[in-house]
Parts: sequence; C-alpha cells; structure tokens
Amino acid sequence: MLRYIDERLLPGELRIAETRDWQTVVQAVKCLAVRGAPAIGLAGAAAVALWAAYDGTDFEAAAEAIASARPTAVNLRWAVNRAFGEASGLEGGARADALYGLVKLMEAEDEETNRAIGEHGSALIGSGSRILTHCNAGSLATCYYGTALGVVYSAAAEGKVERVYADETRPVGQGARLTAWELAQVGIPVTLICDNMAASLMAAGNVDAVIVGADRIARNGDAANKIGTYGVAILAKEHGIPFYVAAPFSTIDAQLADGSGIVIEQRAANEVLPEPIEGVDVWNPAFDVTPARYIAKIVTEKGAFSPEELEARL
Amino acid sequence: MLRYIDERLLPGELRIAETRDWQTVVQAVKCLAVRGAPAIGLAGAAAVALWAAYDGTDFEAAAEAIASARPTAVNLRWAVNRAFGEASGLEGGARADALYGLVKLMEAEDEETNRAIGEHGSALIGSGSRILTHCNAGSLATCYYGTALGVVYSAAAEGKVERVYADETRPVGQGARLTAWELAQVGIPVTLICDNMAASLMAAGNVDAVIVGADRIARNGDAANKIGTYGVAILAKEHGIPFYVAAPFSTIDAQLADGSGIVIEQRAANEVLPEPIEGVDVWNPAFDVTPARYIAKIVTEKGAFSPEELEARL
Repeated sequence: MLRYIDERLLPGELRIAETRDWQTVVQAVKCLAVRGAPAIGLAGAAAVALWAAYDGTDFEAAAEAIASARPTAVNLRWAVNRAFGEASGLEGGARADALYGLVKLMEAEDEETNRAIGEHGSALIGSGSRILTHCNAGSLATCYYGTALGVVYSAAAEGKVERVYADETRPVGQGARLTAWELAQVGIPVTLICDNMAASLMAAGNVDAVIVGADRIARNGDAANKIGTYGVAILAKEHGIPFYVAAPFSTIDAQLADGSGIVIEQRAANEVLPEPIEGVDVWNPAFDVTPARYIAKIVTEKGAFSPEELEARL
Repeated sequence: MLRYIDERLLPGELRIAETRDWQTVVQAVKCLAVRGAPAIGLAGAAAVALWAAYDGTDFEAAAEAIASARPTAVNLRWAVNRAFGEASGLEGGARADALYGLVKLMEAEDEETNRAIGEHGSALIGSGSRILTHCNAGSLATCYYGTALGVVYSAAAEGKVERVYADETRPVGQGARLTAWELAQVGIPVTLICDNMAASLMAAGNVDAVIVGADRIARNGDAANKIGTYGVAILAKEHGIPFYVAAPFSTIDAQLADGSGIVIEQRAANEVLPEPIEGVDVWNPAFDVTPARYIAKIVTEKGAFSPEELEARL
C-alpha cells in the first residue's frame, strides 16, 4: 500500500490517497497528483515495489511505463533503476520484501539528504533575509523537508528568514497552492506574488536571495527546473541577487555534458487555457533550463558548490 | 448614452454595456470592465459628458471621482482635464452638446493617433517577425486599432508578422482573454504563453521584437505599464531583442522627471488568490516601471524615438 498526498486538491483539501496498483501511481505522477523531482523518484520506486507485490507480470513494460511517466526529472529513472537493481535475482515474496525495504530506506535517505541540503544552504543565508522561490521544492516535493524549502526551514530555524516570497508558478500553481500553503502551515511569513511581479519585487530591494529546486542538472551545472526558473535567474543577475539551486546528487545527470540535452516536457494546452479560444495556439513547456553562469551555488547534501566546483567532483 | 465592451466577460461573451450614469462609468473603470490607458482616458471624458447631460451637480466631486478612478494612467486625468476645459464657461444643454462633440472628436483622434503609431512602429519591424507582447494594448485598450497592437496590425498589413506571442498577463489575464482573442478575430497567428515562459521563448530564438503599451511615461522615457513589463524588458535585453513601447503623446507626463514619481496602483489580493489561504499574504501591484535604458524606441503618433530623442522634443 502506498499513501500519498493528492496535491491537485491543495490548499483546499489535504487528502491522503492510497493504492496497491502501480499503474495508479504512474497516473498520479502524470497528472501531477504527485510532483517534485525527489517525490516522483520515490513514487517510481514505490510503483516498482507495488508491481512486485501485486502484479509481477511483464517486467519490461512495467519498468518502461514507470520510468517514462515524466521525461524531465532524472530522479525518476534513477530511482526506478535502483529498484530494479535491488530486485535483480529475486522472485516472489522475497523480491516484494526487498523492494518494500528499499522504498522505506529511500524515504529515510531523502529526508536525511534534504536536512543536509538545508544545513549547507542555510550557511549562505544572511540574517533578516527575504527569500524568493519559484514552484515548490518543499516537503510536498520530496519525502519530507524539501530541497529549496529545506534551506528555508534550516535558515528559519536559525532565525534568519524575515519572509519568503512565493511565485505562484503558472500554469499549475505550485507556488500558490503548495509553497504558500506549506510555509503558512509552519508559520514562516510568506507573500504570494504572480510570476511577473518578481522583477518589481527585486527592483524594490525586497529580495536578498533566490532559491529553487531542480529536476535535472547537467555536468556543467546547467539546471532544468519548473518553467519560469530561467527568467527568475536572469532577473536575479540583473539585480545583483544570488541565485541558488538546491538539489540532491541524484538530480545530477553525469551523462549530460550540458543542458542542451535535457528533454523538456510539453504539457496540454488546457493547463494554460481551460476553455480553448478559436484561432489561439498555446505553448506550454513544463520546464526550462537555467545556464550554469546564472547560478551562484548548487546546494547538495555534500555541500554548496559553484557549478565549476561541482563538475570537478563528478 | 455611452456604449462600451464589458471586457471582464471576454473571450466568452462580447457584451456591449450601455449607460447614461457617469458613476457607472467610474465603476466600470475601477473594476476593469473598461481598461487600457487610452480607453480609460476616453471613458473619463465620456463620464464628464454624461455628468453634464444627466447630472450637472457637484462639479468638484464628480471631477475628482472620475479623474481618480485609477491612479497610474495619466491619460485619464489628461482627458478629464480636457473635457472640463471644453465645458468651461458653458452651462446646461450647450455644455452637454459641447462635451458630446468633444468625446466624438477624441474617439476619432484616438484611432487616427493609433494608426499613426502603427505606421511609425511598423517601420521597425522586419519581415517574418515573431513579436512578443504583454497585456493588451490593442483595439480593446483604445477606441480602435490599439497602440502596441496597432504596430502589429500595420506590420501585418504589410505581411511582416509571422506570429504574435501573447503573455497571459496575470492576475487579470488581459493577454489570455483579450490580446489572444483580439488577434484571432482578425486572423493573425497568435500563441498564448504564461508570463513565466517568455524567457524560454526568447532563448529558443523565437522572438524578434517585443512591443508593449504604456500607462504613463516620464520625461526621461521611464515607462509605467502593466505589471510584468519590466521583467520582459530585462529578458529582452539579456537576449539582445529590441524592446519597444508604443503610446500616444497623451501618455507622456512631462511633469515627471523620471519613473520614480509614478504612483503604482495596488489592487485587491483576491485578483491573485480568489480563495484566501490562512497565513498567506499577497502583493499585487497593477503596474511596474521599465527604466528608459531598457527601451529601444518609444513609438508615438509623431514618430519612433529613443528615450533621449523623445525627451529632447518635450
């Protein structure tokens, strides 16, 4: 049994969905009931475990269906590969038990990783900071604690966060529905803005740092993240504000030399325009790639590194 | 009788509202049923004409209520002042007739101005151009033809427009609801994007020029326009794309040395977040100011000028 928050219903309703069906998990990832690179990684591993426990047929098809549920985040394929590696050579109940154990281990590892990211990132945050974030890279995007919001939580625990500004993050509204709600739950002062207000906020001197998550990071530090991240990075540079990316090492795709090889998922027009207008096309990429030159530090569980420093460690 | 499009209902319904009540016009401007700097200017003059024809009491209060319906666009106060100037020394039916004539004249002038803006702007547009615009500065923002979209219409008539990309323009959606619809009505290829997608679109090499309108332009060329414009200007600069502002001379506030003196209207939180979330604040400025250094040309009815050239003519 996998329990997960159906995030499509937030902030109105906190509903815990339950399933024993791996295909339901794949669907939950596709429809964004479960989202956030670390969370969909774990969901992928959990789907493999459910497949082993309750299905067990057609290994190849299941593996491909799970790993390709969404194309951009590398964590998904990483987690699925890890699960199939764990299952290798096992059958039946032993395989199911091993995979259950792996998923519980990965869940614990993810929180531990995020707390380490939080500590390393907090060292970059000054006292009284106003922090801008885009999309949701918090508890709701991970097993717990978050990556970008992990940094916020760690810095807030040290009393250094004056306020978080959350971009609403169109078209799906992860900032409005998830980040703002998540921060309000723990009492961190949060102000919601439309994505197009970030430039004015920076010009007014109200942003000391920008922190975002990532869905895939290339060797050179180019980082794919939710659509709009690249624009925020440019605005931060123009206003002299440091731009940080917080992500676990599992987000780094060491096979990719740079961001030009990252597949950007295109999503349905009705996310942007629920009622079609005749003669109006829609362009709806789910992610963009921020070139490494805009990124001051990539904050990982092993420390915070400039893109060059990170590449040297790979 | 004033007839106006209630733009809150577009694109679902094209409803022509009618009123003889100047206070209804003020309310229509406040609630964005009528919006766009030139259009609210004319609405202001029309409100004065309706006051003269059907009310006639408490001149001072009516003038202030009309001129202050929205604070940022200078055209509103400009038009109201012009109407009260026209009415000066007249009474009763003669005053009402004079104001009716003035409003009809201003309506014709506005279209003529926009067509001149279109011609001057079209000279800046190359063949096969992909043009990005923000908010709506089209027929729906003016009496007819538009300022930024006037440039698009003139360039399209010369066969130079391959496609227009319309930022949806949160929170009110003038790009999604008005610009995309307006362009589709006349068969100009249009693609709607979320505001946060503009940077990716530029990085992909799909934008040749950015054209926007303006609500108030200071002497030095700093231009107030719909929130998000400033960010688009920064993105255009970063990608080496020319950024044009199209607006009539009535938009220039020669009293203001620079944009720091422009009052930015703050609007209600529920435009951004219809259902409040406990503990979540909202920041909702309706406009921002783009510094003149980001603006390649300001396109007026008298020609297209760099900010420096424009200031020299004032």
